[in-house]
Amino acid sequence: MKLTNDKKILTVGLGLIGGSYAETLTKKGFAVTAIDSRREAIDYALKKGIIADGADVPDRDLIKNADIIVFALYPHIFLDWVKNYGSLIAAGTVATDVTGVKCSVVYEVQRMLPDGVEFIASHPMAGREVYGVENSTPSIFEGANFVVTPTDKNTEDAISLCEDLGKTLGFARVSRLSPEMHDDMIGFLSQLTHCIAVALMTSCDAPDTELYTGDSFRDLTRIARINEDMWTELFMLNKEPLMRHIDLFTAELTKLRNALAENDCETMKQMMRVSTARRARFDKPKNN
Amino acid sequence: MKLTNDKKILTVGLGLIGGSYAETLTKKGFAVTAIDSRREAIDYALKKGIIADGADVPDRDLIKNADIIVFALYPHIFLDWVKNYGSLIAAGTVATDVTGVKCSVVYEVQRMLPDGVEFIASHPMAGREVYGVENSTPSIFEGANFVVTPTDKNTEDAISLCEDLGKTLGFARVSRLSPEMHDDMIGFLSQLTHCIAVALMTSCDAPDTELYTGDSFRDLTRIARINEDMWTELFMLNKEPLMRHIDLFTAELTKLRNALAENDCETMKQMMRVSTARRARFDKPKNN
Repeated sequence: MKLTNDKKILTVGLGLIGGSYAETLTKKGFAVTAIDSRREAIDYALKKGIIADGADVPDRDLIKNADIIVFALYPHIFLDWVKNYGSLIAAGTVATDVTGVKCSVVYEVQRMLPDGVEFIASHPMAGREVYGVENSTPSIFEGANFVVTPTDKNTEDAISLCEDLGKTLGFARVSRLSPEMHDDMIGFLSQLTHCIAVALMTSCDAPDTELYTGDSFRDLTRIARINEDMWTELFMLNKEPLMRHIDLFTAELTKLRNALAENDCETMKQMMRVSTARRARFDKPKNN
Repeated sequence: MKLTNDKKILTVGLGLIGGSYAETLTKKGFAVTAIDSRREAIDYALKKGIIADGADVPDRDLIKNADIIVFALYPHIFLDWVKNYGSLIAAGTVATDVTGVKCSVVYEVQRMLPDGVEFIASHPMAGREVYGVENSTPSIFEGANFVVTPTDKNTEDAISLCEDLGKTLGFARVSRLSPEMHDDMIGFLSQLTHCIAVALMTSCDAPDTELYTGDSFRDLTRIARINEDMWTELFMLNKEPLMRHIDLFTAELTKLRNALAENDCETMKQMMRVSTARRARFDKPKNN
């Protein structure tokens, strides 16, 4: 299957990410439909022209008629949905997702889906500290990374389709990783950083701290405003990689702390030189 | 003394912050002069109209004629400068600084300056990851905090003058703190965050990590591009508060890690709820 805009795309879950997919793809000329249990999300998206059709129940026709299905749900709701309604998906359909962890969902979903339905997992690495289709915007994908995580069950055809989806959505970089490498990477880049932001805020109990803050603290804690249900679930589903990265980070911070305690300026400076050199690689690429 | 724009202001040190002071105050109609050992900095600032006069040596006339002197130097260079040239400052002059640590400089500078010269310390909590007057811009002060740190040697007159300076420079909030409270606060808000950013980068040794990163990691490590000489010096001059805050933070991160290890979702969620509530206080105020 090629990602031409005669393809009918169904998003299951119309929150911030599902809504931003729908809005972007509708603007690109695709016929986009949506299923979300929240009636107001569907009504809002219909009114705003973000979707062409939608339902607040797992509507058989919407599911059967989709060429491509994007699951944009919490992991456990995603797994439940596939278990309960996966059989409604027609053979020939390609499904993908937006889930932030992979090993704990990809293999299970591929096992549960009916024959002829290919699930190719992906992770759009974008987000905001607000929720719902009401906050959706294509701009959250600008400059961001999109990772496709194939398994040996996937065909090159579906992998390419999913990569094209990432490009069509406006992501700056589209990459492939195994589910295992993805989860290790995300444990470091995303989950560890959220843990750090939370621990920074909970260790801050002085009053009026906000009167004295600079940008660095604001930057480090932007993500400290966190959806506790979603992130606790994501952490639990990626426990081993995340714990390993927390331990590695804590060891480095302790090394810096001990260098300070021992007046070992050279070790501190050496760590800062490594940090400075590595950080240069991370500047946001310009979107093409 | 009132901060009327007939006052002659000398900045000693014409780097990013000294340069941004000079540029802002010149635009506001003050006659600003500068001393910096880097000849190119002086030439650049003269050519761009950032200063009215300048010298690359401690010029007696520039020093003697200043009503207000702003020291924008590394802490040890600042202390050396006052020791060597402080006697050139005329009685009636008010001096301030931009140093990021206070206890280790304020009392010593107040002790060394000649009678009749009042030093009122302050900390403009603004910065960028670039250096030099060539990168100066008044915009770095927008929305930022300015903290004045008086001691019992200071007069209300000089404290008010320094507060007016912060407002004139365009800072969003001007506050007073004791040097001790300042250093504790800065150990948490600024120095700890820089330590975390550095430790995050040094614990990151996987290749190609930048292909997969999201905004959260970029935000947490923006300050990982760090001037190792300046920050090592600042850390060493604020060792006890910084070590205490590293230890408090590490304890919180370890608490989160252990909750994860023990599948204690309720503790994780509770920490996230505290984090979310506290973070709301830190959004950047709009500049008036």
